[in-house]
Amino acid sequence: MSIDISVPNRRATVPVNVGGVVIGGAAPISVQTMTKTQTEDVSGTLAQIERAAKAGADIIRVTCDTREAAVALRDIVNGSPIPIVADIHYDAPLALLALEAGIQCLRLNPGNITDKGKVADIAREAKARDVPIRIGVNAGSIPQRKDLERGRGASIDAAAQNMVDAAMGHIRILEELNFRNIKVSLKASDVLTNIAANRKFAALGNRYPLHLGLTEAGPVDSGSVKSAMGIGILLAEGLGDTIRVSLVGQPEDEVRVGRQILSNLQEKGEGPNLVACPTCGRLEIDMFPMVKRVETALADVQRTITVSVMGCVVNGPGEGMHADIGIAGGKQKGILYRNGAVVASLPEAQLIDMLVEELAEIAAEDRRLLAEGKPLPRGLADREGSIRLPVTAG
Amino acid sequence: MSIDISVPNRRATVPVNVGGVVIGGAAPISVQTMTKTQTEDVSGTLAQIERAAKAGADIIRVTCDTREAAVALRDIVNGSPIPIVADIHYDAPLALLALEAGIQCLRLNPGNITDKGKVADIAREAKARDVPIRIGVNAGSIPQRKDLERGRGASIDAAAQNMVDAAMGHIRILEELNFRNIKVSLKASDVLTNIAANRKFAALGNRYPLHLGLTEAGPVDSGSVKSAMGIGILLAEGLGDTIRVSLVGQPEDEVRVGRQILSNLQEKGEGPNLVACPTCGRLEIDMFPMVKRVETALADVQRTITVSVMGCVVNGPGEGMHADIGIAGGKQKGILYRNGAVVASLPEAQLIDMLVEELAEIAAEDRRLLAEGKPLPRGLADREGSIRLPVTAG
Repeated sequence: MSIDISVPNRRATVPVNVGGVVIGGAAPISVQTMTKTQTEDVSGTLAQIERAAKAGADIIRVTCDTREAAVALRDIVNGSPIPIVADIHYDAPLALLALEAGIQCLRLNPGNITDKGKVADIAREAKARDVPIRIGVNAGSIPQRKDLERGRGASIDAAAQNMVDAAMGHIRILEELNFRNIKVSLKASDVLTNIAANRKFAALGNRYPLHLGLTEAGPVDSGSVKSAMGIGILLAEGLGDTIRVSLVGQPEDEVRVGRQILSNLQEKGEGPNLVACPTCGRLEIDMFPMVKRVETALADVQRTITVSVMGCVVNGPGEGMHADIGIAGGKQKGILYRNGAVVASLPEAQLIDMLVEELAEIAAEDRRLLAEGKPLPRGLADREGSIRLPVTAG
Repeated sequence: MSIDISVPNRRATVPVNVGGVVIGGAAPISVQTMTKTQTEDVSGTLAQIERAAKAGADIIRVTCDTREAAVALRDIVNGSPIPIVADIHYDAPLALLALEAGIQCLRLNPGNITDKGKVADIAREAKARDVPIRIGVNAGSIPQRKDLERGRGASIDAAAQNMVDAAMGHIRILEELNFRNIKVSLKASDVLTNIAANRKFAALGNRYPLHLGLTEAGPVDSGSVKSAMGIGILLAEGLGDTIRVSLVGQPEDEVRVGRQILSNLQEKGEGPNLVACPTCGRLEIDMFPMVKRVETALADVQRTITVSVMGCVVNGPGEGMHADIGIAGGKQKGILYRNGAVVASLPEAQLIDMLVEELAEIAAEDRRLLAEGKPLPRGLADREGSIRLPVTAG
């Protein structure tokens, strides 16, 4: 489910519709990912798409690099719970086959197809089917200009301009064919170039929605930090309508990080939120296993709720009072808070058991409500919970 | 070692000096962390400080919550390779003991100390020793205002204003004592409040350096994403002079993420940089183990160098040409690039062996140069490397 973020002055764009998922305009920001299977393997690809959709992907891209892959797209589109984007590079016939297979978006750079008659065929067919085209420029795959330095020392501004020029070249080819159902991505593998390229593109004043991402961000841990910055800084400025995090990992990892990025920019967060202190020498309870247990319990909760697990009495009570439910450690005994009030002062082992038990109850409640098609409440709502102990002297 | 980042219009601040590490002004951004040991345990605390310093911490904070901790600070300061900040909460005598122990910065909110005479004593002693005071406001630990809503739905603007008001209250107490050797932190556990509070503070127009961080960001993975955004968005706007990432993890984890955040904002990156594709259905080589091997080999390299490991011929050659050294997969055979030129076309197993071997040689070269006190070259410099094969037909 795409996510409404809270940023001022979002760039005005003309929305495109990818199989029911609106990108741009006032639409919430959607999260995309890409399959890492061979597209010819329909069941393997659909299994991966299922997992990505379950993790919260709104749209998924699959490569379409062979005739067999293009043919397989029909079954993939039919079996997928979310819209499919076909990734085409140089091969015009594959684009036409993908459109016939029913894909909901094409990723294609028309400048890479030398036969302009074939580009016209693709644009005509995409228009007839109301399928948008994503133009996607990656810093690494555009021809290297002789006047640019190589490597990280290269001028960021010049590299960004090169990317924007490449994107505009592709856009003009489609505009000349009177095709404007376009979204655009400009991706680099470093944060500053990525930011510069998208700012430059936005400054041109056109209204094509932006798909944000860093290419080749690397392994999950460092790649998450890179992506959070390269995407998050732009989103905070009001740029970007859909995002994809690229990691050396599973599509679910990409979706999880993408959704984290968006949820950090939500004024009213959606889903569970865990506030946990970093631990320090003031630590009075054993935080690591406690945080782990709460994190595991919280993974099954689906509603919007803030849970705090704090190790000491300096920041613990404040966070506990602000959270929907929280515990703050103390010497021997800690405190449990619900809805901004102290409900119990107990030894830590009991405290954590109670918190985990209540989270399990909430998770069950969420599952039941969703199965019944009912909306989820925010926080604890009016549930009494399993914790109804009087406060005892700490 | 603190890091020069490339952001326009950095906020002008009057620098403070924490035991030789300059914070603010034109100084590079420093990375801080906090010990998680009991401060009374001198050898355990020093061992943790050593590890944090080795990971790249510029400054480290230790809690000073008991008389024994304050006394232990003398040995900790003497044994530490980096400056020590003592964390004081309500106890004025502990602040004086910490100053006598030789700590290089105090973190203390003077408004929390009721006896104003004692605050004057601390300010006088800090001034005599040229020790700065960090005023540190955490959203969770300031008194809750009745007019603010509870939970994530609370007005971000009002919460941010509350934090700024609290910080200004503490600052005024020190200013009235004619103490201005101050740096300030305003931390929340959510990204939007954190950003709003620091922007509001900067808009006041004073020149106190800002220490940035999110409090209680949570476990390492989601906490890294949160911190990258809550800190990175502000840095990109020119706000912030020193940073600390707070994670439920080891100080080394905090330092690693902090340095990643800064290095993503460097125009000329310092240290090794791995560009690796996220893999997709175009994949022609087995990326995961290859990236893992390169990552491991690269961990020992210290110079500034970009290495790319790409799975296919779409983005691979471009990234390979831009990197100092890189491989791009292909059917059966892949290509190895050095300094922007193709140097070999070989089966993937051979390719990866050669890359890892060259990285090991570079790591050894870096160790030797550093031991000899010589500067590290950037990239491959003029080394010929172990790879001198002619290009064979792919």
